[in-house]
Formats: sequence, structure tokens, C-alpha cells
Amino acid sequence: MTGRLAIVGLGPGSPELTTPLASETLAAATDLVGYGPYLARVPERPGQQRHPSDNREELARAKQALELAAAGKSVAVVSSGDPGVFAMASAVFEAVETGKPAWRDVDVTVVPGVSAMLAAAARIGAPLGHDFCVISLSDNLKPWDVVLKRLEAAVSGDFIIVLYNPASKARPWQLAEALSLIACHRASSTPVIFAHAVSRPDERIDITTLAGADPASADMRTLIIIGSSATKLVTGSKGKRFVYTPRHVELVEP
Amino acid sequence: MTGRLAIVGLGPGSPELTTPLASETLAAATDLVGYGPYLARVPERPGQQRHPSDNREELARAKQALELAAAGKSVAVVSSGDPGVFAMASAVFEAVETGKPAWRDVDVTVVPGVSAMLAAAARIGAPLGHDFCVISLSDNLKPWDVVLKRLEAAVSGDFIIVLYNPASKARPWQLAEALSLIACHRASSTPVIFAHAVSRPDERIDITTLAGADPASADMRTLIIIGSSATKLVTGSKGKRFVYTPRHVELVEP
Repeated sequence: MTGRLAIVGLGPGSPELTTPLASETLAAATDLVGYGPYLARVPERPGQQRHPSDNREELARAKQALELAAAGKSVAVVSSGDPGVFAMASAVFEAVETGKPAWRDVDVTVVPGVSAMLAAAARIGAPLGHDFCVISLSDNLKPWDVVLKRLEAAVSGDFIIVLYNPASKARPWQLAEALSLIACHRASSTPVIFAHAVSRPDERIDITTLAGADPASADMRTLIIIGSSATKLVTGSKGKRFVYTPRHVELVEP
Repeated sequence: MTGRLAIVGLGPGSPELTTPLASETLAAATDLVGYGPYLARVPERPGQQRHPSDNREELARAKQALELAAAGKSVAVVSSGDPGVFAMASAVFEAVETGKPAWRDVDVTVVPGVSAMLAAAARIGAPLGHDFCVISLSDNLKPWDVVLKRLEAAVSGDFIIVLYNPASKARPWQLAEALSLIACHRASSTPVIFAHAVSRPDERIDITTLAGADPASADMRTLIIIGSSATKLVTGSKGKRFVYTPRHVELVEP
């Protein structure tokens, strides 16, 4: 008997941002598969099997999950944020496409979640209030030249830019190069947000500028938002600062 | 006494995709402000005042909400999807910046939600599995030349492209022009998704290609995802089709 596989987005961190559909899907699973720290966010249930794995093992984890489902289990693959944005969903479909023929018989569904970028944006206003690009800075799975080409395209279109995976111990210099490229084309006063561990107990959100951005303050759990030419910083109640991008765009000729 | 204002994302449609934080914030409000059909999705509560308004009245609605909050009410402004993505959050911060000085004293928060693009992507696989751009096709608030420039930038970077607001009665020709521009640069077999009313009872999701995409089938409630050069169509269980974008990118020289 073939089972099923749900790829579930937990949201960014707080249980208050996990959807009811995600919670129900996790509760109904016989087996949970995922990166250890994400599995640790799921409430324990008697009889449920847990299969934690290390980071950067996405494809192996996807294959393991499909193997369990093909054997009749009801499997939930756990992602932080939304599973479709630089997370497990793509790895599972890659395994379906390239793996054992029996895996194509598994009923695969995706349960969306509040992504880290939406949660980070919400914490400081509405920086994603107009057209934006979302780019992973990791060159583990793509050549750095592709990253640079996409950053240049994003800058040429005056998009707000969201950077996932800005830095890690193995990738220490990429963020500085990316910020330098963007700073060649945008005002030094452009608002920049470093959002660390959004909605987790150790959340830290820094509002800075392109001139003031410190690449060394980013790590694996940081998400960065860089404003377009229209993005503004506003001081509201009790000195609290907001960043937002207006809904209107004026056409500025160079 | 100054009250508070929360800008709340309901998620795409199904109550199963509304976060607990959104539900609690809505339940605690004295006043609900929003576009009529979105307010209708919020459960009724005795004593709570509702202030429905028409579409395309975002700034007037934001001002009304701030006025109520400045008068001491606990106001929730309701958005579909996520309030920060082409929705009410930007309008509220614009009103804070440009409106009455007293409005800066209002405690404004944003409650993120599952955006339509994440929900649409989840329904058909993992099309947003790599770098992507999000563009509103509406030229109500920006010149059409800006839209074209951003589409060209998105194409030059080989981004997956998400189109919000692709068409309305007042904007009948823009989508055809946008698809034509993209088709000049991408293979006619590129997967294209038309997602209508995602997670609502009348949901309809069509998987097609750039060659097969029919602009006339889109309206105000449609969201469109256009694959990058890497995006693939896979046939899984019982003929069910998935679209996903692999996590790897190969560098292709032109």
C-alpha cells in the first residue's frame, strides 16, 4: 500500500504563526522527517516516529521521506517558513522526478506557511510593499556568477531585494560582495534590514542603510531586505521606526 | 487615549490557512476595517464594529483606520493573503507618514499571513524553488513603462516571475503585452500557472505553457507564475502534474 507525503511549512518560528492546516497535518502523520532543529519545534505525539537529519542533506532527506511513504506511511516533511521558498518542497519533487518509479505513486501535497521574508517584513513595516526579488546568496548549488547576474538584474529593475542564505561559516565573503554591487547603483541612504531569527525568542531586527550595513553581522539565520529607490524610513510612535515602500511609483528618467 | 492598529493577513482564503495570531488579533479588535469581501471572511463577534469599504480605496481606508485608532479604538485592518504584499500595510504606513501628526502615536503592528503566491505554488508543486521576482501588473499606481522595465530585468536575470493583479475590466491588455515580452526571451514550453481564487471554494488552477497561456482567462483574482529556464513539469501519481524549479542552477553561456 502506498502512503502519503505532506511537505509542511511551520512558519518562521512562533507557534502563533503556524497555520491550523500545518498543525493538523503534523498531528496526523505517522512519521516526521526534517532538519533536527525544525523537528524540535513540532509537539511530541505518542507513537509518532521522528527522523531528524543534518542541515544540507535535503535530497537524502527527501528520498528517505518518499521511501517511507512508498512503504505505506503517512509522512510529514517539516520545513521552517514556507516549504516552497528555498526549503524542502523542491528537493522532494526533484526526488520524485529522478528517483524510484514507485515514488511517483506517492500522494504528495504541500502545506504552505508564513515565509521568513513575510514575517521579517511585518516586523518593521511594509518594505515589500512594491515589486521585489528574492535571491538565495548561497553558491553551494549555483555558480556565483549566476548570483551576480541576478543581483545586477534586480538592481537594473529597481526591485526591492530579499536575500536568503546571506552567509555561513563556509561562505564568509559573498554578502560583502553582493552589498558592494548593490551600493554601486543605489543611494547610500537606502534602507536595509537585517532580520535575525524572526519570531523566535532570540529575534533581533536591525534597521540600517546600504552605507551602514555590516556583512559580518549576518549568519545562517539572517534574512536581509534591501530597499528600492522608493523605500522610506518613517519614525512613528515613541521613536519606533518603520520601513515601507509606497504603492505609487514615479517614473524617473536617468 | 490612543488606541492601536493591527494590519492582519487572513491568508489566501481557507480558514485553515489563517494563523492563530491573526485569528486572536481579529477577535480582540473593537473595530474591523477592510474591503467588504475580506471582512465577510472574518467570524462575527457581538459588539464588534465593522467598516467595510470598496476596492481601490486603500488610502482612504487606512486613514479611517488610523482615525479610529487615534480615538482609542483597537482596530484591525483586514487584508487577504499577506498584508505586506500588494495589500494594506503599505497604505497604512503611507498614511502614518503623510497624515495627521496624532496618527504617529498609534501603536501599529503587522500580522503576516500566507500570501497568495505561496498558496498557489503549494497547490502545484514547488515552482518558486529558486530565485524569483514578484511584480504587480497594475498600472493604476505606476507607469506601464516601469512594469515593462521590471519585466525585462526579471527576464534578463532568468528569474521565476510571479504576476499579481494581472488583469481587470479596466486593464484588459496589459497581461498579453507582458506575456509577449517574456515569450521573446523564454522557451515556448516554459511552464506557466494560472491560479484563480486559491484555497477558495471556486479555486481553479491551470498548468499551461508560455505558448498556451491565454491572457483572457485571467481576472482580478488570478495570480500567474511563469517558470525560469530551469522550471520543470513532472507527472506524478495518477497523472497528477507538478511544476517545480530545481535547487541547482547550471551556468549556461548564451
